[in-house]
Amino acid sequence: MNQPADAPDSSVDLHGAFHVYDTTLRDGMQQEGLNPTVADKLAIARQLDGLGVGYIEGGWPGANPKDTEFFRRAAAELDLRHAKLAAFGATRRAGVKAADDPLVAALRDSGAGVVTLVAKSHVGHVEKALRTTLEENLAMVRDTVSHLRAEGQQVFLDAEHFFDGYRLDRAYALEVLRTAYDAGADVVALCDTNGGMLPGWVADVVHDVVQTTGVRVGIHCHNDTGCAVANTLAAVDAGATHVQGCINGYGERTGNADLVNVVANLELKLDRQVLPPGLLQEATRIAHAVAEVTNVPPASRQPYVGVSAFAHKAGLHASAIKVDPDLYQHMDPAGVGNDMRLLVSEMAGRASIELKGRELGFDLSEHPEVVNRVTSRVKEMEAGGYTFEAADASFELLLIEEVEGRRPSYFDVESWRVITETLTHAQPGEEAVSEATVKLRAAGVRYVVTGEGNGPVNALDQALRTAIVQAYPAIAKFELIDFKVRILDQGHGTDAITRVLIETSDGESSWVTVGVGANVIEASWEALVDGFTFGLVRHHVE
Amino acid sequence: MNQPADAPDSSVDLHGAFHVYDTTLRDGMQQEGLNPTVADKLAIARQLDGLGVGYIEGGWPGANPKDTEFFRRAAAELDLRHAKLAAFGATRRAGVKAADDPLVAALRDSGAGVVTLVAKSHVGHVEKALRTTLEENLAMVRDTVSHLRAEGQQVFLDAEHFFDGYRLDRAYALEVLRTAYDAGADVVALCDTNGGMLPGWVADVVHDVVQTTGVRVGIHCHNDTGCAVANTLAAVDAGATHVQGCINGYGERTGNADLVNVVANLELKLDRQVLPPGLLQEATRIAHAVAEVTNVPPASRQPYVGVSAFAHKAGLHASAIKVDPDLYQHMDPAGVGNDMRLLVSEMAGRASIELKGRELGFDLSEHPEVVNRVTSRVKEMEAGGYTFEAADASFELLLIEEVEGRRPSYFDVESWRVITETLTHAQPGEEAVSEATVKLRAAGVRYVVTGEGNGPVNALDQALRTAIVQAYPAIAKFELIDFKVRILDQGHGTDAITRVLIETSDGESSWVTVGVGANVIEASWEALVDGFTFGLVRHHVE
Repeated sequence: MNQPADAPDSSVDLHGAFHVYDTTLRDGMQQEGLNPTVADKLAIARQLDGLGVGYIEGGWPGANPKDTEFFRRAAAELDLRHAKLAAFGATRRAGVKAADDPLVAALRDSGAGVVTLVAKSHVGHVEKALRTTLEENLAMVRDTVSHLRAEGQQVFLDAEHFFDGYRLDRAYALEVLRTAYDAGADVVALCDTNGGMLPGWVADVVHDVVQTTGVRVGIHCHNDTGCAVANTLAAVDAGATHVQGCINGYGERTGNADLVNVVANLELKLDRQVLPPGLLQEATRIAHAVAEVTNVPPASRQPYVGVSAFAHKAGLHASAIKVDPDLYQHMDPAGVGNDMRLLVSEMAGRASIELKGRELGFDLSEHPEVVNRVTSRVKEMEAGGYTFEAADASFELLLIEEVEGRRPSYFDVESWRVITETLTHAQPGEEAVSEATVKLRAAGVRYVVTGEGNGPVNALDQALRTAIVQAYPAIAKFELIDFKVRILDQGHGTDAITRVLIETSDGESSWVTVGVGANVIEASWEALVDGFTFGLVRHHVE
Repeated sequence: MNQPADAPDSSVDLHGAFHVYDTTLRDGMQQEGLNPTVADKLAIARQLDGLGVGYIEGGWPGANPKDTEFFRRAAAELDLRHAKLAAFGATRRAGVKAADDPLVAALRDSGAGVVTLVAKSHVGHVEKALRTTLEENLAMVRDTVSHLRAEGQQVFLDAEHFFDGYRLDRAYALEVLRTAYDAGADVVALCDTNGGMLPGWVADVVHDVVQTTGVRVGIHCHNDTGCAVANTLAAVDAGATHVQGCINGYGERTGNADLVNVVANLELKLDRQVLPPGLLQEATRIAHAVAEVTNVPPASRQPYVGVSAFAHKAGLHASAIKVDPDLYQHMDPAGVGNDMRLLVSEMAGRASIELKGRELGFDLSEHPEVVNRVTSRVKEMEAGGYTFEAADASFELLLIEEVEGRRPSYFDVESWRVITETLTHAQPGEEAVSEATVKLRAAGVRYVVTGEGNGPVNALDQALRTAIVQAYPAIAKFELIDFKVRILDQGHGTDAITRVLIETSDGESSWVTVGVGANVIEASWEALVDGFTFGLVRHHVE
């Protein structure tokens, strides 16, 4: 059920009985390879708000300059419809008053709707990492929480290393929780910081905590045993009412619990509404949008939102799906905004090719010989490095070629060359320039065109479009929007086969073409030419 | 404990009370993007055997020509020390005698140590997908299992869609299991084919099956709810004694249960020895070796074996690890053959840089100003697109530069250029050739050298090495073994920044260097030059 854009749904109180707490911008950014700017973080925050999470932990203002800047700009620029911003930080330093600790002040003054304090709940960490006494640690918790509460700030506590600490000294671990709760923390989140827990163990501990202390429990899991999502669900089952995680399961080492995965399971499997109605359907779009900002391609096999999550390859599965999609899917992908995809590959049976053809508008049910030829060509080309799973436009050109007996062609290329060389008066980072010359015939006219660019493929793209735009003005709308290179057979350095995927857009839709060759420039050229060709086909150019 | 190579350990009966059953080569290969040759499958089988799994499901001989070939060659070429080969296939066709069904014959004659039959246990699938009666389906199970047993073949049964089938019609689902077991199947594996189960549900169903039927239960899970590993463990806890999965969690859609993840949890968390002693320590090496064969890079955050699984980035964590590695790790990575890694990045505090420096042989404890300078430069360069997390050699060159005041340099480059052009008499797939000219001074001599290659970077590599090998003969041993290109900021087509990682080997060890630039050739050149430079530093060339 979609809500009108300007009326936040009030049927689910995101800050009430159940909390969905996102720590993508703090814990998530500890993932190897993630390195967002402040602008990136603001963009991600907007996306997360679009999902309807109740809390967005924005970072550690005061300790991390980038995060201090984030909170400063968030106060001015972020207009969150669902989420409250949370500032993360530590309890006061040992031996210093909370009111005198500048880092605590930074949290208090961050403008965040809630402060989440991380505290040690493991005697080993108190002694070896903090190097203070068990009593002082409790005082640090008590004083910092009380101080912030007295200043009108809402407080959550992250009990770091809780499960390991509970095993080492249960009494002390529980004492930390009580201390925080009695001082005014609304939630104490039990953190499996090192990620070593299994679901049954989490359930037992959470159950004990809930029964013994009566505090309101949250859960924060990592995926080191591959059970982060299951551990989170086990905790909820045992009484936790606040779940923490990261979008796309980002996080240090193996990552935090994948928050969308957790929420999808709660809503779709356990019938528990935890986001505003209708927003789970935005999950796939949002997960991918965040991945674009972070520049880390999302895992294709990610549950619910991965591009492969509902992709069917086995011929048997495709045949059954022809009969009834539910036969091989555990749910309708639309529930999370994803799509079912039928993959064309050598494993695909003729049923898959036929279904894929139908998806692209070709009725091949009366043409088994075409299906056979296409199936053979796909198997053969994939053996040589092509992939059609990700390049629907190239597959469609192949289909057209087999159906009509002739591959669409709008220009005849005579030759091309591209030269890249260092500049005589070079600036660091701008030391080389590329220049491409293309010779072709289009609509009866011969063109010799030179294009320049900051890379060889960019230069070829410029030359090619300049050459054919006169014959085909529609080209002016096409833009190359994505370019992926993959070296196949990675054990052979630069001698390997290269596969290039190019995504072209005309401003309304986009399409992907593939090129393969021993020479990366040649592979790129093939994908480029097919990209323009397919665009012209789509624009019904004769 | 390592066993001598030629004496398989007999303390764990891999075909007895507990089975570790690998379906990488059958179910795993249904993953989008996986496309192994028969040679690939044989290589993977050898690796899996090295892990000590009890069973390797090799494919579907008779139905899939590649798999028929695999079993044929396996009989002649595969010398498995631990695993028995399993042939997967379907029960006889409806209305045909098992002895007369050619696909059943293909299974029987495959030479496999066990045949695993997949059977429908879900009334909806029997009626809509198989289009036969419930009675005939039971007969198909009974007849095929009996036939194969009569022929002296060991049989397992995969009860497809079992959990969904059990929910729809529990009595029928259980009847299928009993029928198979009574006809002689040694194990009935309950398959969550669509992947929609959660751990608690799996536990309840498995418990009921074990209590009610007394069959020997196996478990086969998919990761559609992100709980494949947890579901598998829940089944074992409820009485399953046969676990199926795939290495690296390969498989259709979101993949099968990650078999190494499952086994590591069983052995290291639940104290259950299921592989021959000592072989779990080979897991990381084997998981990566299989990933190299499949040409699909392993997920860096994969539990236990991922390169990031024990990689620590946050400054806080690094400071604590300086004190005690166990403070932030749930186990010693050596248990699975992995390593702890400290990541150098802008998030890294000075403690990480210092520790990383120590790892590389630099004692910076007395030189805080060097640590500061290095930390600043790392943050700045990473903001510009560099990554040092994966390029230790580039980081080391940066360290040397800051410690010694001068970056190592063995040659002065004047200029380079590379031209790629189409050949006049081209063959498809070999249509372009690259030629590079490099001008530089080395050891007082000026060189102008031209190299050729099948790609621009290959040509530059040839020219560069030819130019400097006379001054530095050590170069002759260096080989470029890996080359990764990543386009940053993927929303801008070919206008983006490119990052290149190059791995160079001297036959004994290897090192990785990074290059960044708007021009991919320029980025490659930077990584190439640093690759040679670092190699010469490592070889103590003056």
